[in-house]
Amino acid sequence: MLTLHSYFRSSAAFRVRIALNLKGLDYDQIPVNLLKGEHRLEAHRRRNPQGLVPVLETEQGSALTQSMAICEYLEERYPEPPLLPESLEARARVRSLALLVACEMHPLNNVSVLGYLTDQLGVDEATKLAWYQHWVAKGFTAFEARLTQEAATGTFCHGDKPTLADVFLVPQVFNAERFNCDLSAYPTLVRTADRCRELPEIEKAAPAAQADAV
Amino acid sequence: MLTLHSYFRSSAAFRVRIALNLKGLDYDQIPVNLLKGEHRLEAHRRRNPQGLVPVLETEQGSALTQSMAICEYLEERYPEPPLLPESLEARARVRSLALLVACEMHPLNNVSVLGYLTDQLGVDEATKLAWYQHWVAKGFTAFEARLTQEAATGTFCHGDKPTLADVFLVPQVFNAERFNCDLSAYPTLVRTADRCRELPEIEKAAPAAQADAV
Repeated sequence: MLTLHSYFRSSAAFRVRIALNLKGLDYDQIPVNLLKGEHRLEAHRRRNPQGLVPVLETEQGSALTQSMAICEYLEERYPEPPLLPESLEARARVRSLALLVACEMHPLNNVSVLGYLTDQLGVDEATKLAWYQHWVAKGFTAFEARLTQEAATGTFCHGDKPTLADVFLVPQVFNAERFNCDLSAYPTLVRTADRCRELPEIEKAAPAAQADAV
Repeated sequence: MLTLHSYFRSSAAFRVRIALNLKGLDYDQIPVNLLKGEHRLEAHRRRNPQGLVPVLETEQGSALTQSMAICEYLEERYPEPPLLPESLEARARVRSLALLVACEMHPLNNVSVLGYLTDQLGVDEATKLAWYQHWVAKGFTAFEARLTQEAATGTFCHGDKPTLADVFLVPQVFNAERFNCDLSAYPTLVRTADRCRELPEIEKAAPAAQADAV
């Protein structure tokens, strides 16, 4: 059985839940309460020296980290249904959309960065919110431009089935909504995320649907 | 012919040059001068709405973005020599080390973030440098712990041949040195990066070896 060490609100864990669900895989989910600092405990540090979630324990007994690496693993270990298209250029397109979120947006707005802004730089709440919204706007402007300009866009980010691009987009849209980002300039990506959220596999991966949700 | 749109000092472009060189691929390199704002010009925005480098134009005529997506493409299109190991768990390990750099370290210390700290938050040079060094220390502490604790570490990050983990590590070490980060707490990763830099394929990918270096 696959075991996912997770926190309901972690958007990286949310990505992995979506990938697992889309592939129809069964998994146990063990909550790591980030607010209570459980990710800093020795038990979790042994699984991941970075102290981050998600960590996926595989059926082969490995503990995997980094949501993108976990998704690539799931794609290789459990190929059906695929979350990457067939052609190599198309695969690169899907990965680059996912990585736009993973490398240009999410890292700037995670808990430890927001904590540094408050604790080390002493910024107030409004300045912190402006920081958050700035990086969301910058990333989503690029994401929206790609969806509208690139011919491969379909009812989902790439064609008419969900791919890793959607797996990464949906949690980022959730986060943006939670931080009151104005998404009116990104109708294509919002429509795409809404279509994703109609899928039961994605709906049941959402933060509010998890056992540890508060 | 492959064409890489690049800037000598961009560490994401540096990664792609290393991967291209390790695979023995010929490519044209077209400099995009970030200091002169050439990445914001329409010609480059057409290649990449994000206005970032690197962009790889493939032999099939696609323009690929995001260094990790480009590296995965190169691995799939030109499999020899491989930059990912064979076993699926080992591939996940290598990817997670590369992504530790790509998702947890580099995004926090790139030009646009440092610019925001100075221009929007009004921090001084010392505070900006402390920010930079904080995220390098946090990431490298985890990277070092993994290299020392995980049995798969060899003379390179994974076994005895360079992989994508080394491709991502080397430019990050270059950057850390440029920003005067104290690396004495990370002897394993520094030794690994030094071994990489002895390879002619990696040496000729270095910023100072590029035609647009100043």
